[in-house]
Amino acid sequence: MREGLMTENLPPTQGENTATASQHAALSDKESRSEARRSQILQAATDCFCAHGFHGASMSAISKMARMSPGHVYHYFDSKEAIIEAIVDRDLQQFYTLANGLQNVDYMLDCMVAQLDVDDALRVTSCNPLMMLEMTAEASRNERIAAKLRQSDQLLRQRLQLLFFGPQAVDEQERLQQEARVDVMCMLFEGMMIRGVTNPATRREPLRMVLKQTIGQLLQGNEEHLQL
Amino acid sequence: MREGLMTENLPPTQGENTATASQHAALSDKESRSEARRSQILQAATDCFCAHGFHGASMSAISKMARMSPGHVYHYFDSKEAIIEAIVDRDLQQFYTLANGLQNVDYMLDCMVAQLDVDDALRVTSCNPLMMLEMTAEASRNERIAAKLRQSDQLLRQRLQLLFFGPQAVDEQERLQQEARVDVMCMLFEGMMIRGVTNPATRREPLRMVLKQTIGQLLQGNEEHLQL
Repeated sequence: MREGLMTENLPPTQGENTATASQHAALSDKESRSEARRSQILQAATDCFCAHGFHGASMSAISKMARMSPGHVYHYFDSKEAIIEAIVDRDLQQFYTLANGLQNVDYMLDCMVAQLDVDDALRVTSCNPLMMLEMTAEASRNERIAAKLRQSDQLLRQRLQLLFFGPQAVDEQERLQQEARVDVMCMLFEGMMIRGVTNPATRREPLRMVLKQTIGQLLQGNEEHLQL
Repeated sequence: MREGLMTENLPPTQGENTATASQHAALSDKESRSEARRSQILQAATDCFCAHGFHGASMSAISKMARMSPGHVYHYFDSKEAIIEAIVDRDLQQFYTLANGLQNVDYMLDCMVAQLDVDDALRVTSCNPLMMLEMTAEASRNERIAAKLRQSDQLLRQRLQLLFFGPQAVDEQERLQQEARVDVMCMLFEGMMIRGVTNPATRREPLRMVLKQTIGQLLQGNEEHLQL
Protein backbone atom coordinates (compact mmCIF):
# COMPACT_ATOMS: atom_id res chain seq x y z
CA MET A 1 0.00 0.00 0.00
CA ARG A 2 2.74 2.44 0.98
CA GLU A 3 5.01 1.41 -1.88
CA GLY A 4 1.95 1.63 -4.14
CA LEU A 5 1.36 5.26 -3.26
CA MET A 6 5.04 5.91 -3.64
CA THR A 7 5.58 4.52 -7.15
CA GLU A 8 2.16 4.97 -8.77
CA ASN A 9 2.03 8.70 -8.28
CA LEU A 10 5.65 9.54 -8.94
CA PRO A 11 6.59 11.12 -12.26
CA PRO A 12 8.26 8.52 -14.54
CA THR A 13 12.02 8.70 -14.98
CA GLN A 14 12.26 6.09 -17.76
CA GLY A 15 9.76 5.22 -20.54
CA GLU A 16 8.28 1.74 -21.13
CA ASN A 17 10.74 -0.52 -22.89
CA THR A 18 10.06 -3.68 -24.91
CA ALA A 19 13.44 -3.89 -26.71
CA THR A 20 15.80 -6.90 -26.93
CA ALA A 21 18.77 -7.19 -24.55
CA SER A 22 21.35 -5.49 -26.82
CA GLN A 23 18.85 -2.85 -27.96
CA HIS A 24 18.06 -2.39 -24.31
CA ALA A 25 21.72 -1.90 -23.39
CA ALA A 26 22.20 0.64 -26.21
CA LEU A 27 19.03 2.48 -25.27
CA SER A 28 19.96 2.52 -21.58
CA ASP A 29 23.33 3.94 -22.47
CA LYS A 30 21.72 6.66 -24.58
CA GLU A 31 19.09 7.28 -21.92
CA SER A 32 21.64 7.60 -19.14
CA ARG A 33 23.66 10.11 -21.23
CA SER A 34 20.47 12.03 -21.84
CA GLU A 35 19.62 11.81 -18.13
CA ALA A 36 23.08 13.16 -17.25
CA ARG A 37 22.60 16.11 -19.61
CA ARG A 38 19.20 16.88 -18.11
CA SER A 39 20.70 16.77 -14.59
CA GLN A 40 23.48 19.09 -15.71
CA ILE A 41 20.91 21.60 -17.00
CA LEU A 42 18.79 21.37 -13.82
CA GLN A 43 21.84 22.02 -11.66
CA ALA A 44 22.92 24.99 -13.80
CA ALA A 45 19.37 26.38 -13.70
CA THR A 46 19.20 26.00 -9.90
CA ASP A 47 22.47 27.95 -9.59
CA CYS A 48 21.22 30.65 -11.97
CA PHE A 49 17.80 30.99 -10.29
CA CYS A 50 19.41 31.27 -6.85
CA ALA A 51 21.94 33.84 -8.08
CA HIS A 52 19.66 36.00 -10.24
CA GLY A 53 16.04 35.00 -9.58
CA PHE A 54 13.69 33.36 -12.05
CA HIS A 55 13.39 36.45 -14.25
CA GLY A 56 17.04 37.38 -14.00
CA ALA A 57 18.15 33.93 -15.25
CA SER A 58 17.81 33.76 -19.04
CA MET A 59 17.90 30.51 -21.03
CA SER A 60 21.17 31.82 -22.49
CA ALA A 61 22.66 32.29 -18.97
CA ILE A 62 21.49 28.79 -18.01
CA SER A 63 23.10 27.35 -21.20
CA LYS A 64 26.35 29.13 -20.41
CA MET A 65 26.36 27.85 -16.81
CA ALA A 66 25.62 24.30 -18.09
CA ARG A 67 28.36 24.67 -20.77
CA MET A 68 25.97 23.77 -23.57
CA SER A 69 24.60 25.63 -26.57
CA PRO A 70 21.15 27.21 -26.08
CA GLY A 71 19.90 24.89 -28.88
CA HIS A 72 21.06 21.89 -26.88
CA VAL A 73 19.25 23.13 -23.76
CA TYR A 74 16.06 23.74 -25.80
CA HIS A 75 16.34 20.17 -27.10
CA TYR A 76 15.67 19.00 -23.52
CA PHE A 77 13.46 21.80 -22.16
CA ASP A 78 11.29 24.15 -24.20
CA SER A 79 11.15 26.91 -21.56
CA LYS A 80 12.25 28.00 -18.09
CA GLU A 81 8.87 26.79 -16.81
CA ALA A 82 9.66 23.30 -18.15
CA ILE A 83 12.99 23.41 -16.27
CA ILE A 84 11.23 24.45 -13.04
CA GLU A 85 8.73 21.61 -13.46
CA ALA A 86 11.59 19.13 -13.85
CA ILE A 87 13.28 20.54 -10.72
CA VAL A 88 10.02 20.12 -8.77
CA ASP A 89 9.80 16.49 -10.00
CA ARG A 90 13.42 15.84 -9.06
CA ASP A 91 12.93 17.34 -5.58
CA LEU A 92 9.79 15.23 -5.12
CA GLN A 93 11.78 12.07 -5.99
CA GLN A 94 14.47 13.08 -3.48
CA PHE A 95 11.89 13.79 -0.83
CA TYR A 96 10.28 10.37 -1.36
CA THR A 97 13.67 8.72 -0.86
CA LEU A 98 14.12 10.77 2.29
CA ALA A 99 10.61 10.42 3.66
CA ASN A 100 10.82 7.01 5.38
CA GLY A 101 13.50 8.41 7.67
CA LEU A 102 11.15 11.16 8.83
CA GLN A 103 9.41 8.71 11.18
CA ASN A 104 12.50 9.17 13.33
CA VAL A 105 11.81 12.53 14.97
CA ASP A 106 15.49 13.33 15.56
CA TYR A 107 16.19 12.81 11.87
CA MET A 108 13.17 14.98 11.02
CA LEU A 109 14.64 17.73 13.22
CA ASP A 110 17.98 17.38 11.39
CA CYS A 111 16.19 17.89 8.06
CA MET A 112 14.16 20.80 9.39
CA VAL A 113 16.98 22.73 11.09
CA ALA A 114 19.25 22.12 8.06
CA GLN A 115 17.00 24.51 6.08
CA LEU A 116 18.58 27.39 8.04
CA ASP A 117 21.79 26.92 6.05
CA VAL A 118 21.86 26.19 2.32
CA ASP A 119 24.98 23.99 2.52
CA ASP A 120 23.50 21.97 5.38
CA ALA A 121 20.18 21.70 3.54
CA LEU A 122 21.92 20.39 0.39
CA ARG A 123 23.92 17.90 2.44
CA VAL A 124 20.96 16.59 4.45
CA THR A 125 17.98 16.87 2.08
CA SER A 126 19.55 17.62 -1.35
CA CYS A 127 16.90 20.34 -1.79
CA ASN A 128 17.87 24.00 -1.95
CA PRO A 129 15.62 26.16 0.30
CA LEU A 130 16.49 29.35 -1.65
CA MET A 131 15.35 27.65 -4.87
CA MET A 132 12.11 26.67 -3.11
CA LEU A 133 11.53 30.30 -2.01
CA GLU A 134 12.22 31.53 -5.54
CA MET A 135 9.81 28.96 -7.03
CA THR A 136 7.06 29.82 -4.55
CA ALA A 137 7.41 33.55 -5.23
CA GLU A 138 7.26 32.85 -8.97
CA ALA A 139 4.29 30.47 -8.55
CA SER A 140 2.30 33.31 -6.97
CA ARG A 141 2.17 34.93 -10.42
CA ASN A 142 2.68 31.99 -12.82
CA GLU A 143 -0.23 29.55 -13.03
CA ARG A 144 1.79 26.78 -14.72
CA ILE A 145 4.39 26.71 -11.95
CA ALA A 146 1.68 27.06 -9.28
CA ALA A 147 -0.15 24.01 -10.70
CA LYS A 148 3.05 21.97 -10.65
CA LEU A 149 3.95 22.97 -7.08
CA ARG A 150 0.40 22.22 -5.89
CA GLN A 151 0.41 18.78 -7.50
CA SER A 152 3.79 17.94 -5.98
CA ASP A 153 2.73 19.32 -2.59
CA GLN A 154 -0.39 17.16 -2.61
CA LEU A 155 1.68 14.01 -3.24
CA LEU A 156 4.04 14.97 -0.42
CA ARG A 157 1.19 15.58 2.00
CA GLN A 158 -0.40 12.22 1.12
CA ARG A 159 2.94 10.55 1.71
CA LEU A 160 3.46 12.29 5.08
CA GLN A 161 -0.08 11.51 6.19
CA LEU A 162 0.47 7.82 5.47
CA LEU A 163 3.85 7.88 7.26
CA PHE A 164 2.61 9.62 10.40
CA PHE A 165 -0.98 8.40 10.72
CA GLY A 166 -1.17 5.17 8.68
CA PRO A 167 -3.97 4.44 6.15
CA GLN A 168 -6.57 7.18 5.67
CA ALA A 169 -8.98 7.54 8.59
CA VAL A 170 -12.60 6.54 7.85
CA ASP A 171 -14.01 9.21 10.17
CA GLU A 172 -14.14 12.51 8.26
CA GLN A 173 -13.36 14.73 11.25
CA GLU A 174 -10.32 12.61 12.11
CA ARG A 175 -9.14 12.65 8.49
CA LEU A 176 -9.46 16.46 8.28
CA GLN A 177 -7.57 16.85 11.53
CA GLN A 178 -4.77 14.60 10.26
CA GLU A 179 -4.60 16.65 7.05
CA ALA A 180 -4.34 19.84 9.14
CA ARG A 181 -1.56 18.30 11.26
CA VAL A 182 0.37 17.50 8.08
CA ASP A 183 -0.21 21.08 6.86
CA VAL A 184 1.28 22.42 10.09
CA MET A 185 4.29 20.08 9.70
CA CYS A 186 4.80 21.52 6.20
CA MET A 187 4.50 25.06 7.61
CA LEU A 188 7.32 24.31 10.04
CA PHE A 189 9.59 23.06 7.22
CA GLU A 190 8.73 26.00 5.00
CA GLY A 191 8.81 28.63 7.73
CA MET A 192 12.35 27.42 8.46
CA MET A 193 13.38 28.28 4.89
CA ILE A 194 12.29 31.88 5.52
CA ARG A 195 14.03 31.90 8.94
CA GLY A 196 17.21 30.91 7.08
CA VAL A 197 17.04 34.29 5.32
CA THR A 198 15.62 36.51 8.09
CA ASN A 199 17.24 34.96 11.18
CA PRO A 200 20.08 32.66 10.07
CA ALA A 201 21.87 33.22 13.39
CA THR A 202 19.08 31.59 15.40
CA ARG A 203 20.42 29.19 18.06
CA ARG A 204 20.01 25.61 16.81
CA GLU A 205 19.83 23.69 20.10
CA PRO A 206 17.00 25.61 21.83
CA LEU A 207 15.13 25.61 18.48
CA ARG A 208 15.46 21.80 18.22
CA MET A 209 14.14 21.39 21.77
CA VAL A 210 11.07 23.53 21.15
CA LEU A 211 10.42 21.91 17.76
CA LYS A 212 10.70 18.44 19.27
CA GLN A 213 7.90 19.28 21.72
CA THR A 214 5.83 20.88 18.95
CA ILE A 215 6.20 17.90 16.62
CA GLY A 216 5.56 15.47 19.48
CA GLN A 217 2.30 17.26 20.16
CA LEU A 218 1.32 17.30 16.45
CA LEU A 219 1.84 13.54 16.19
CA GLN A 220 0.42 12.70 19.59
CA GLY A 221 -1.55 9.47 19.80
CA ASN A 222 0.22 8.07 16.73
CA GLU A 223 3.35 6.85 18.45
CA GLU A 224 3.20 3.44 16.73
CA HIS A 225 4.34 5.18 13.54
CA LEU A 226 7.20 7.02 15.19
CA GLN A 227 10.61 6.71 16.76
CA LEU A 228 10.43 9.53 19.28
CA MET B 1 8.60 49.50 29.28
CA ARG B 2 6.52 47.97 26.51
CA GLU B 3 5.71 51.33 24.97
CA GLY B 4 9.39 52.16 25.29
CA LEU B 5 10.46 49.22 23.17
CA MET B 6 7.71 50.02 20.74
CA THR B 7 8.62 53.62 20.00
CA GLU B 8 12.36 53.71 20.60
CA ASN B 9 13.19 51.05 18.05
CA LEU B 10 10.76 52.03 15.35
CA PRO B 11 12.04 53.78 12.24
CA PRO B 12 11.11 57.51 12.35
CA THR B 13 8.25 58.68 10.15
CA GLN B 14 8.80 62.43 10.77
CA GLY B 15 12.01 64.37 11.36
CA GLU B 16 12.74 66.50 14.46
CA ASN B 17 10.97 69.85 14.29
CA THR B 18 11.80 73.07 16.14
CA ALA B 19 9.75 75.49 13.96
CA THR B 20 7.18 78.05 15.11
CA ALA B 21 3.45 77.20 15.06
CA SER B 22 2.74 78.61 11.56
CA GLN B 23 5.98 77.24 10.13
CA HIS B 24 5.02 73.96 11.76
CA ALA B 25 1.57 73.95 10.11
CA ALA B 26 3.07 74.74 6.70
CA LEU B 27 5.74 72.11 7.14
CA SER B 28 3.19 69.52 8.30
CA ASP B 29 1.10 70.20 5.24
CA LYS B 30 4.10 69.79 2.96
CA GLU B 31 5.22 66.73 4.87
CA SER B 32 1.83 65.10 4.69
CA ARG B 33 1.70 65.67 0.90
CA SER B 34 5.17 64.19 0.65
CA GLU B 35 4.06 61.28 2.85
CA ALA B 36 1.03 60.69 0.60
CA ARG B 37 3.29 60.60 -2.47
CA ARG B 38 5.62 58.11 -0.78
CA SER B 39 2.64 55.88 0.13
CA GLN B 40 1.41 56.05 -3.44
CA ILE B 41 4.80 54.88 -4.71
CA LEU B 42 5.03 52.07 -2.13
CA GLN B 43 1.57 50.79 -3.09
CA ALA B 44 2.41 50.93 -6.81
CA ALA B 45 5.71 49.13 -6.16
CA THR B 46 3.96 46.42 -4.12
CA ASP B 47 1.53 45.82 -7.00
CA CYS B 48 4.39 45.72 -9.53
CA PHE B 49 6.57 43.38 -7.43
CA CYS B 50 3.65 40.98 -6.89
CA ALA B 51 2.73 41.03 -10.58
CA HIS B 52 6.21 40.81 -12.12
CA GLY B 53 8.71 40.00 -9.37
CA PHE B 54 11.47 42.25 -8.10
CA HIS B 55 13.53 42.01 -11.29
CA GLY B 56 10.53 42.19 -13.61
CA ALA B 57 9.35 45.48 -12.04
CA SER B 58 11.39 48.38 -13.44
CA MET B 59 11.45 51.85 -11.88
CA SER B 60 9.72 53.00 -15.06
CA ALA B 61 6.89 50.43 -14.57
CA ILE B 62 6.57 51.50 -10.92
CA SER B 63 6.37 55.19 -11.99
CA LYS B 64 3.67 54.33 -14.53
CA MET B 65 1.64 52.36 -11.96
CA ALA B 66 2.00 55.27 -9.47
CA ARG B 67 1.05 57.79 -12.24
CA MET B 68 4.19 59.84 -11.67
CA SER B 69 7.22 60.67 -13.76
CA PRO B 70 10.29 58.48 -13.11
CA GLY B 71 12.09 61.68 -12.02
CA HIS B 72 9.45 62.26 -9.38
CA VAL B 73 9.81 58.68 -8.09
CA TYR B 74 13.61 59.05 -7.96
CA HIS B 75 13.11 62.24 -5.95
CA TYR B 76 11.70 60.07 -3.14
CA PHE B 77 13.61 56.78 -3.64
CA ASP B 78 17.00 56.40 -5.29
CA SER B 79 16.54 52.69 -6.17
CA LYS B 80 14.23 49.69 -6.00
CA GLU B 81 16.17 48.59 -2.90
CA ALA B 82 15.27 51.90 -1.22
CA ILE B 83 11.60 51.24 -2.05
CA ILE B 84 11.80 47.72 -0.58
CA GLU B 85 13.42 49.12 2.57
CA ALA B 86 10.57 51.61 2.94
CA ILE B 87 8.01 48.81 2.45
CA VAL B 88 9.71 46.76 5.17
CA ASP B 89 9.58 49.81 7.50
CA ARG B 90 5.91 50.40 6.68
CA ASP B 91 5.04 46.73 7.31
CA LEU B 92 6.94 46.87 10.61
CA GLN B 93 4.90 49.91 11.69
CA GLN B 94 1.68 48.12 10.75
CA PHE B 95 2.77 45.00 12.58
CA TYR B 96 3.51 47.01 15.73
CA THR B 97 0.00 48.49 15.58
CA LEU B 98 -1.38 44.98 15.17
CA ALA B 99 0.85 43.25 17.70
CA ASN B 100 -1.03 44.01 20.96
CA GLY B 101 -4.02 42.13 19.58
CA LEU B 102 -1.91 39.00 19.13
CA GLN B 103 -2.18 38.28 22.85
CA ASN B 104 -5.70 37.14 21.99
CA VAL B 105 -5.05 33.70 20.50
CA ASP B 106 -8.24 33.69 18.40
CA TYR B 107 -7.20 36.97 16.81
CA MET B 108 -3.71 35.58 16.23
CA LEU B 109 -5.32 32.61 14.44
CA ASP B 110 -7.36 35.03 12.29
CA CYS B 111 -4.15 36.81 11.24
CA MET B 112 -2.34 33.52 10.63
CA VAL B 113 -5.03 31.76 8.60
CA ALA B 114 -5.68 34.96 6.60
CA GLN B 115 -2.23 34.46 5.00
CA LEU B 116 -3.78 31.61 2.97
CA ASP B 117 -5.75 34.14 0.98
CA VAL B 118 -4.04 37.29 -0.23
CA ASP B 119 -7.23 39.40 -0.12
CA ASP B 120 -7.98 38.25 3.44
CA ALA B 121 -4.38 38.86 4.43
CA LEU B 122 -4.59 42.41 3.16
CA ARG B 123 -7.81 42.99 5.07
CA VAL B 124 -6.61 41.54 8.41
CA THR B 125 -2.95 42.53 8.54
CA SER B 126 -2.33 45.10 5.74
CA CYS B 127 0.76 43.06 4.82
CA ASN B 128 0.83 41.19 1.54
CA PRO B 129 2.18 37.62 1.93
CA LEU B 130 3.16 37.45 -1.77
CA MET B 131 5.22 40.62 -1.35
CA MET B 132 6.89 39.03 1.68
CA LEU B 133 7.76 35.89 -0.32
CA GLU B 134 9.15 38.04 -3.13
CA MET B 135 11.25 40.10 -0.68
CA THR B 136 12.60 37.00 1.06
CA ALA B 137 13.56 35.38 -2.25
CA GLU B 138 15.30 38.62 -3.29
CA ALA B 139 17.00 38.96 0.12
CA SER B 140 18.64 35.57 -0.42
CA ARG B 141 20.82 37.18 -3.11
CA ASN B 142 20.78 40.88 -2.16
CA GLU B 143 22.72 41.77 0.98
CA ARG B 144 21.15 45.22 1.38
CA ILE B 145 17.60 43.81 1.42
CA ALA B 146 18.70 40.89 3.62
CA ALA B 147 20.16 43.32 6.19
CA LYS B 148 16.92 45.33 6.24
CA LEU B 149 14.71 42.23 6.63
CA ARG B 150 16.95 40.87 9.41
CA GLN B 151 16.85 44.15 11.32
CA SER B 152 13.07 44.36 11.01
CA ASP B 153 12.69 40.68 11.96
CA GLN B 154 14.78 41.20 15.08
CA LEU B 155 12.56 44.10 16.22
CA LEU B 156 9.45 41.97 15.61
CA ARG B 157 10.87 39.05 17.57
CA GLN B 158 11.78 41.32 20.51
CA ARG B 159 8.26 42.71 20.43
CA LEU B 160 6.65 39.25 20.33
CA GLN B 161 8.90 37.97 23.11
CA LEU B 162 7.85 40.88 25.35
CA LEU B 163 4.17 40.32 24.45
CA PHE B 164 4.15 36.60 25.12
CA PHE B 165 6.72 36.19 27.88
CA GLY B 166 7.04 39.61 29.52
CA PRO B 167 10.41 41.27 30.33
CA GLN B 168 13.52 39.34 29.25
CA ALA B 169 14.25 36.29 31.43
CA VAL B 170 17.39 36.54 33.57
CA ASP B 171 18.15 32.82 33.26
CA GLU B 172 20.00 32.26 29.95
CA GLN B 173 18.48 28.85 29.22
CA GLU B 174 14.99 30.25 29.74
CA ARG B 175 15.72 33.27 27.55
CA LEU B 176 17.06 31.06 24.74
CA GLN B 177 14.00 28.84 24.97
CA GLN B 178 11.69 31.86 24.78
CA GLU B 179 13.60 33.10 21.73
CA ALA B 180 13.18 29.67 20.11
CA ARG B 181 9.44 29.69 20.89
CA VAL B 182 9.12 33.07 19.18
CA ASP B 183 11.09 31.71 16.19
CA VAL B 184 8.63 28.83 15.89
CA MET B 185 5.68 31.28 16.07
CA CYS B 186 7.30 33.21 13.19
CA MET B 187 7.76 29.93 11.26
CA LEU B 188 4.04 29.25 11.56
CA PHE B 189 3.15 32.70 10.18
CA GLU B 190 5.68 32.42 7.38
CA GLY B 191 4.96 28.79 6.56
CA MET B 192 1.33 29.83 6.11
CA MET B 193 2.38 32.30 3.37
CA ILE B 194 3.90 29.38 1.44
CA ARG B 195 0.81 27.20 2.12
CA GLY B 196 -1.23 30.01 0.55
CA VAL B 197 0.59 29.30 -2.72
CA THR B 198 1.03 25.51 -2.53
CA ASN B 199 -2.20 24.48 -0.75
CA PRO B 200 -4.64 27.40 -0.84
CA ALA B 201 -7.59 24.97 -0.66
CA THR B 202 -6.60 23.71 2.79
CA ARG B 203 -9.61 23.49 5.14
CA ARG B 204 -9.57 26.47 7.51
CA GLU B 205 -11.46 25.09 10.51
CA PRO B 206 -9.42 21.92 11.20
CA LEU B 207 -6.26 23.98 10.59
CA ARG B 208 -7.36 26.55 13.19
CA MET B 209 -8.04 23.78 15.73
CA VAL B 210 -4.61 22.21 15.28
CA LEU B 211 -2.85 25.60 15.31
CA LYS B 212 -4.68 26.61 18.48
CA GLN B 213 -3.28 23.52 20.26
CA THR B 214 0.18 24.15 18.81
CA ILE B 215 0.25 27.81 19.84
CA GLY B 216 -1.20 26.95 23.26
CA GLN B 217 1.67 24.53 23.77
CA LEU B 218 4.28 27.07 22.57
CA LEU B 219 3.02 29.66 25.04
CA GLN B 220 2.38 27.22 27.88
CA GLY B 221 3.11 28.52 31.37
CA ASN B 222 2.73 32.14 30.21
CA GLU B 223 -1.04 32.36 30.39
CA GLU B 224 -0.95 35.66 32.30
CA HIS B 225 0.08 37.33 29.03
CA LEU B 226 -2.65 35.69 26.99
CA GLN B 227 -6.35 35.54 26.31
CA LEU B 228 -6.66 31.86 25.34
